[in-house]
Amino acid sequence: MPPTDIPNLKPAHRVEDTFLVLDVELRTLDTGESFTILRLGNSTGEIATEPFWPARQDEVAGVRKGHPVRVVGEVGIYRQKKQLRISSVRVLPRDALDLTALLPTVGPVDRYWDTIDGWRRSVVKPRLLGVLDLFFDDEEFRHRFELCPASVRGHHAQLGGLLKHTTEVAAIARAISRTSGADHDVVLAGVLLHDIGKLEAYSWDGAFDYTIAGSLLGHVVLGSLMFDQRLRLEAKSPCTEEEKCLLQHMILSHHGRLEFGSPVQPMTLEAEVLHWADNASAKSASVADAIRDDESFLEGPVSRPQWTLDRRRVYRQVCDWGLVADD
Amino acid sequence: MPPTDIPNLKPAHRVEDTFLVLDVELRTLDTGESFTILRLGNSTGEIATEPFWPARQDEVAGVRKGHPVRVVGEVGIYRQKKQLRISSVRVLPRDALDLTALLPTVGPVDRYWDTIDGWRRSVVKPRLLGVLDLFFDDEEFRHRFELCPASVRGHHAQLGGLLKHTTEVAAIARAISRTSGADHDVVLAGVLLHDIGKLEAYSWDGAFDYTIAGSLLGHVVLGSLMFDQRLRLEAKSPCTEEEKCLLQHMILSHHGRLEFGSPVQPMTLEAEVLHWADNASAKSASVADAIRDDESFLEGPVSRPQWTLDRRRVYRQVCDWGLVADD
Amino acid sequence: MPPTDIPNLKPAHRVEDTFLVLDVELRTLDTGESFTILRLGNSTGEIATEPFWPARQDEVAGVRKGHPVRVVGEVGIYRQKKQLRISSVRVLPRDALDLTALLPTVGPVDRYWDTIDGWRRSVVKPRLLGVLDLFFDDEEFRHRFELCPASVRGHHAQLGGLLKHTTEVAAIARAISRTSGADHDVVLAGVLLHDIGKLEAYSWDGAFDYTIAGSLLGHVVLGSLMFDQRLRLEAKSPCTEEEKCLLQHMILSHHGRLEFGSPVQPMTLEAEVLHWADNASAKSASVADAIRDDESFLEGPVSRPQWTLDRRRVYRQVCDWGLVADD
Amino acid sequence: MPPTDIPNLKPAHRVEDTFLVLDVELRTLDTGESFTILRLGNSTGEIATEPFWPARQDEVAGVRKGHPVRVVGEVGIYRQKKQLRISSVRVLPRDALDLTALLPTVGPVDRYWDTIDGWRRSVVKPRLLGVLDLFFDDEEFRHRFELCPASVRGHHAQLGGLLKHTTEVAAIARAISRTSGADHDVVLAGVLLHDIGKLEAYSWDGAFDYTIAGSLLGHVVLGSLMFDQRLRLEAKSPCTEEEKCLLQHMILSHHGRLEFGSPVQPMTLEAEVLHWADNASAKSASVADAIRDDESFLEGPVSRPQWTLDRRRVYRQVCDWGLVADD
Amino acid sequence: MPPTDIPNLKPAHRVEDTFLVLDVELRTLDTGESFTILRLGNSTGEIATEPFWPARQDEVAGVRKGHPVRVVGEVGIYRQKKQLRISSVRVLPRDALDLTALLPTVGPVDRYWDTIDGWRRSVVKPRLLGVLDLFFDDEEFRHRFELCPASVRGHHAQLGGLLKHTTEVAAIARAISRTSGADHDVVLAGVLLHDIGKLEAYSWDGAFDYTIAGSLLGHVVLGSLMFDQRLRLEAKSPCTEEEKCLLQHMILSHHGRLEFGSPVQPMTLEAEVLHWADNASAKSASVADAIRDDESFLEGPVSRPQWTLDRRRVYRQVCDWGLVADD
Amino acid sequence: MPPTDIPNLKPAHRVEDTFLVLDVELRTLDTGESFTILRLGNSTGEIATEPFWPARQDEVAGVRKGHPVRVVGEVGIYRQKKQLRISSVRVLPRDALDLTALLPTVGPVDRYWDTIDGWRRSVVKPRLLGVLDLFFDDEEFRHRFELCPASVRGHHAQLGGLLKHTTEVAAIARAISRTSGADHDVVLAGVLLHDIGKLEAYSWDGAFDYTIAGSLLGHVVLGSLMFDQRLRLEAKSPCTEEEKCLLQHMILSHHGRLEFGSPVQPMTLEAEVLHWADNASAKSASVADAIRDDESFLEGPVSRPQWTLDRRRVYRQVCDWGLVADD
Repeated sequence: MPPTDIPNLKPAHRVEDTFLVLDVELRTLDTGESFTILRLGNSTGEIATEPFWPARQDEVAGVRKGHPVRVVGEVGIYRQKKQLRISSVRVLPRDALDLTALLPTVGPVDRYWDTIDGWRRSVVKPRLLGVLDLFFDDEEFRHRFELCPASVRGHHAQLGGLLKHTTEVAAIARAISRTSGADHDVVLAGVLLHDIGKLEAYSWDGAFDYTIAGSLLGHVVLGSLMFDQRLRLEAKSPCTEEEKCLLQHMILSHHGRLEFGSPVQPMTLEAEVLHWADNASAKSASVADAIRDDESFLEGPVSRPQWTLDRRRVYRQVCDWGLVADD
Repeated sequence: MPPTDIPNLKPAHRVEDTFLVLDVELRTLDTGESFTILRLGNSTGEIATEPFWPARQDEVAGVRKGHPVRVVGEVGIYRQKKQLRISSVRVLPRDALDLTALLPTVGPVDRYWDTIDGWRRSVVKPRLLGVLDLFFDDEEFRHRFELCPASVRGHHAQLGGLLKHTTEVAAIARAISRTSGADHDVVLAGVLLHDIGKLEAYSWDGAFDYTIAGSLLGHVVLGSLMFDQRLRLEAKSPCTEEEKCLLQHMILSHHGRLEFGSPVQPMTLEAEVLHWADNASAKSASVADAIRDDESFLEGPVSRPQWTLDRRRVYRQVCDWGLVADD
Repeated sequence: MPPTDIPNLKPAHRVEDTFLVLDVELRTLDTGESFTILRLGNSTGEIATEPFWPARQDEVAGVRKGHPVRVVGEVGIYRQKKQLRISSVRVLPRDALDLTALLPTVGPVDRYWDTIDGWRRSVVKPRLLGVLDLFFDDEEFRHRFELCPASVRGHHAQLGGLLKHTTEVAAIARAISRTSGADHDVVLAGVLLHDIGKLEAYSWDGAFDYTIAGSLLGHVVLGSLMFDQRLRLEAKSPCTEEEKCLLQHMILSHHGRLEFGSPVQPMTLEAEVLHWADNASAKSASVADAIRDDESFLEGPVSRPQWTLDRRRVYRQVCDWGLVADD
Repeated sequence: MPPTDIPNLKPAHRVEDTFLVLDVELRTLDTGESFTILRLGNSTGEIATEPFWPARQDEVAGVRKGHPVRVVGEVGIYRQKKQLRISSVRVLPRDALDLTALLPTVGPVDRYWDTIDGWRRSVVKPRLLGVLDLFFDDEEFRHRFELCPASVRGHHAQLGGLLKHTTEVAAIARAISRTSGADHDVVLAGVLLHDIGKLEAYSWDGAFDYTIAGSLLGHVVLGSLMFDQRLRLEAKSPCTEEEKCLLQHMILSHHGRLEFGSPVQPMTLEAEVLHWADNASAKSASVADAIRDDESFLEGPVSRPQWTLDRRRVYRQVCDWGLVADD
Repeated sequence: MPPTDIPNLKPAHRVEDTFLVLDVELRTLDTGESFTILRLGNSTGEIATEPFWPARQDEVAGVRKGHPVRVVGEVGIYRQKKQLRISSVRVLPRDALDLTALLPTVGPVDRYWDTIDGWRRSVVKPRLLGVLDLFFDDEEFRHRFELCPASVRGHHAQLGGLLKHTTEVAAIARAISRTSGADHDVVLAGVLLHDIGKLEAYSWDGAFDYTIAGSLLGHVVLGSLMFDQRLRLEAKSPCTEEEKCLLQHMILSHHGRLEFGSPVQPMTLEAEVLHWADNASAKSASVADAIRDDESFLEGPVSRPQWTLDRRRVYRQVCDWGLVADD
Repeated sequence: MPPTDIPNLKPAHRVEDTFLVLDVELRTLDTGESFTILRLGNSTGEIATEPFWPARQDEVAGVRKGHPVRVVGEVGIYRQKKQLRISSVRVLPRDALDLTALLPTVGPVDRYWDTIDGWRRSVVKPRLLGVLDLFFDDEEFRHRFELCPASVRGHHAQLGGLLKHTTEVAAIARAISRTSGADHDVVLAGVLLHDIGKLEAYSWDGAFDYTIAGSLLGHVVLGSLMFDQRLRLEAKSPCTEEEKCLLQHMILSHHGRLEFGSPVQPMTLEAEVLHWADNASAKSASVADAIRDDESFLEGPVSRPQWTLDRRRVYRQVCDWGLVADD
């Protein structure tokens, strides 16, 4: 049975399904009274429950962020927003479930793997290919890489988001490599490796979050450490020390500027290309997300200031440029 | 006869050819003595003359920046740099010459036109195509567009540089449009129009320079004005007011941030895509130029700080990654 | 009958009058209950209504921001603030009304016109006068110019605010011209033209707001475009191209720095003078407004941080310096 | 006999006059040889001498910055610059001379005093007038105030520059006070006092320079200290503590922002008005100076980047706007 | 009887004691209903009362921030926070009370005086000691100095906080003096004097607050003025003018950079040492405070962004590094 | 025989000794003539040679930066600077020499080791001690650590500079730990490890320079990698993963802010203490160096702007504060 299609729920719909608890919000009125609201999600979206007042607090006493829960209820409307009115909520054992079915996802990932693996196989520099295969021929690595989100909350914050983002960066980087004369193989290697630190910086077993290492060291340096550790496992390094240094440099410099968290700035053409491709993928995704969000446009075609875009506003256009649309 | 191949001149070569005066440098020694050096260029590169001391000042008395000159001389070496030792220099009338043959150039431009015109013909939105054709079907416009440099001194500072840069931005923008879901036609239109202001902001009849309007108004706003003026020449506007406004917005916001000279920030996905594609083309070209410049690497593989890159240093790599090169 | 004097309403006053709906605020309690509050205004000030709870939602169902409404009610007090308790609210047809009578206003504008027209007539440079007259002898232009606010919410956000602000800038600019030796006529021309873009960037038919062009292009560039378009309507330009360029430069550079939205910085003495006069008028008006606002000083003579002043605090002084006041 | 008119010296003119040594420049060629150049000035301008080579070093052995010297020589030309070729230079005793006759000056200062004293006499607040008179009725204070420059090198770097600048600020501040509703008397008091710290921060007995207190404490705080000290000399303070505090606040906040050296930002309307008037006078003077400087425009109407203007360029216009000039 | 130990109150505890009113918070629900909450404190901590609804408003009508009050009540719990449910609250006359017993405090200050006076007595430079004794041998000064907090809300916001902070800075500065070769005596003098302006910038008779002079002039300049005034009281200055200037410089430059409120930057080694010691004490205290605050860690070991630390997050570690703890 | 005491050479001294070539400067006069100057150094200081003109170029043909050379010559004076006039210069084989004797040095390092090892031995946390001993009980590590400079050109740019700087930071950090309540052992560990990356980022076999890894990865990340690699060499990690993470965090965050090259900001009290102690040692050393440099004070007690201090000026004081000096 497919998961409840949250975005298309209608008032008075009856709901009986499994959800992930994305957040447990405790709120206190100015009057001193307090209540609890759960944010529930699955792969299709998310929805809030009605408030649990003190009289019903024991119904949600053991519910925590990241728990899978079995819920029975009905869709209500408060003002313009849908709410779940709950008649029963029960925490499920985590082991019995595939939690990933309850998180937002980019959908099937084969198409991304096909693209990336295809480009990888086209690499003609033997030692470079050797390095990449250490990671991308490793099933364990691939498994984690295809689940990891590209951010905790922001662009591509979905299961598979990292893989999708990496594919996008690779596609954009190919175009920039071509116009600027950068080395395609080296750029591709940098693209594939630049965000591997997110595998250790983020957690996705339950709601997306930062790991302790993610908070204390950051994904940029974690990627650099993971790269170093993996190559040291080999009896014989697949590449020279200087070549290794160049790839490390690409991982470390991909945020482009010190104030954005890169400890060094790009010094090679390939690192520069990677930086702009990464930026173009991440920032255009953020703008696309902002324009898609109906709640920002309640007052007209100019949105409210967007926190994800440094308080920029975006504009929703509806011009057809004379095109007679069919659909 | 082909122009003198400046980069490949050797000491004691005799030179007799026409050059453009790129600069007339007047220098005064601390001793109070002064002399003149000419920087001469043609489409292949540039070279300085030996000093003209006071006794020979009348030989260069009438020579000005932007003049074409007929020169006879011989190549000398001072320290590590080549110099032209001049036996005769004569100013030529400008009318008799194709000055553009004396300026650095991107070479034949047909390939760029082919690419751009091909993409333009694929535009399916009638009113958008109508707008583009006002400019890109106009022979006078095309003539100027294929000569104009993309900067006075910086990335793509060559005849045809604007056309080349525009083609690069278009290619990169296509990749970003695809990954972000932006409208291809609108993005292409923004790309083709974003830098048209440079046609009035720069001059290239002689050495590259800013026009007065370029200094006082800037190429961003000049582009906006030219766009508006051209559309007003039509009895019936090829597009709606809002559509026109969206294209104006792309021209004005393409520098991305106020401190980089855009009076507004990008508010549409298409403007955002244009901004990143433009940046990727310009900045990767600047890095590529810096790495190509031998003079920055006299002391090793790490360059001196580069003024064109906000004093960043670049690194020249020589790794072969195990590839047995054939050439 | 004069409009209701909102600032001087007292509790239990009966009110029956026409107001403009400045905003329709929909609020939801944490409990899930929601209600509507209207902000009503006329030329004397503004006041909020009591909440309309769900049971009364149909009374305000069709009320929108910018609507004129006929209201019957009574003044109540909640805590320290006055509220209108509504017994009847009815939307009026817009055509039948002079909406401008319902907006905050600077009052009679003749004194501003007298000042500005007087100074304009003193211009001795024929071509400069010719340019100014294209705008300031045009009745349609004058009509819009004397209504337009100088900002949507901020300094001089009143009908006639632009005219008042322009007069202030002119007065200050005269003083700076005198001390710095700038050309009085050119400075005056820049002052009169610098903000004309606001005529197309703002709307005041209903509550003050940004137009789409105002959001996407900004008033600085809109002013530049309007200036260009008007001059192009003339068979023969009233001034030379360079002169036109200098005036365009003043319009474009009047914010002084790129990060404040000017695409170019001032390059002439006259543009510099305009910039400082504009700043002095706008910023001192903002400080004066902040000091006038009683709500900022509930806790003492040092205000809360002011958002309109980059979170600066202001101080309300009460010294009499030994002056025996009469009033 | 009037001083030598330096700006109008012509080649081969014979010079015999007294000058101030503005600087003693010791330069060393790359060859290891060194020489000395003197920069000489009087109230009309400044000029450099030809180099003194080692053989003539004893002629300038005892010459120091700030010395008055008697010079005999002849005007020569190197390239485009005039030089003094010296046949005799002799240091004069300082006591015998009015050094101020050798420094750049604003000329007669009575007109400035008349303006300022006139406005001061119009102050109607008794305690405020009492404070101002402590300073501006004190002959010793007036004597120093009318000599002090407004900067060491920058805007109004002339004898009397402080008085001239203060008069300008007062004139501009009056205009801003009028438009913003600020208290004229308080603003005037702030204007008159805001830069008094320069009396102790700068020295002008010889070339303009910073005093040690000027370097270590700055003129802003020095003004605050001088103000406090003077009032404490009075048995009974001419104003209340809070009034004193408000004037101190104006002195301290007149640079407007912390990063410009004000330890506090303006918190009263009067302090705000003072800040903008001060800025308008100083910055427009700097732009006017830059445009007046022929050496910046050797290559055309757009100047080189100006260090005094944060590397902005300025533009020299020559439009007559149709005015038939008589002179 | 010791004061009520606020941090260790348990639900249902009866409370009858004297507290200081730290704040009177008036809140209005969206419904229009309003109520009052008191924040009460003593030397052990602070706690909020339950809401006083309109029916009980007269119980708190005369209560103001800074009042001492006699309270009878009982501890309640709302959600996770303790509240005081009040049965009686009565304002006490201020004269009858030692208000300082009701404010947070660093505890006994003798240990700090012992340290500081010990170091002061070790000063070997006679004139420097003479300056310090003017302040630190003055009983009135010592009395105020040992009460004053080091900030109103921030690091060391406690009675005695300034003395404690000064002692910390002195200890750190000694270490830096030793490694850098700075003059110990001069550094100590700067440390002891650097924050004396806080005696006039803050008030602590009731809740901690800024004085008007503190808001308008700032503690940095107030310290400079107090230093100057005290020395002028002496018939013969205890030190030379230049020495005085160096100490003033240390007071004024101790924030290190203009944007942090110092009108001049450190120019001597001793001023530099003072600056870093001051920063190290203040910032490490802020981090320690943030880590101590349980409320920031409700969701895990990584805190919420901390406003006192420019929105940095802090981490609470629990590693024992193999140490078997005994206590 | 001790090395030539460069700072105390007098004109006409004969010199015959071994030096390190710190730089080979090729300069070209505007006349086109070029020459070479060598900068020679040993442990006592550095001095330039007279120019080698073209006629003598073969004498220095094979001389390169980092070469040890045998020099015979005599001290000359040009203007105020000493020069070596060379009669013979000969490159020595590197193997035969202890190059470190030719570099600036902090002198004997035992005192620093004694201090640091003493503090290390006082660490009471077993696992922390275990980590430190991996590095500081390793003779190879100690050997490199006691040679490495703390910067290439800047503070502590001497052999042994890193060890000296580390000792200073430890001493300052102890004081800050004490006042802030930080864990002494953890702080000490962070201090000892924070700059270990410099061992791989800098080279000192010849003149001080950056390694390629130093340029591409930076010493901050290199330290993190070295730390990780060393611990992985152990079969059993001497500490837990979280403990390791906390030490890594201290290494990575010690520059305090992203724009200074730390990829993460300090999140623990111990990391905060390390950051301020590091800053205090480095910045006070830079100020002390600047004040020691006679060449900055040729014009008076206020120095020229110092590049090492962001163009701040420093002041050289000479007050004796009444102390009768003995020496």
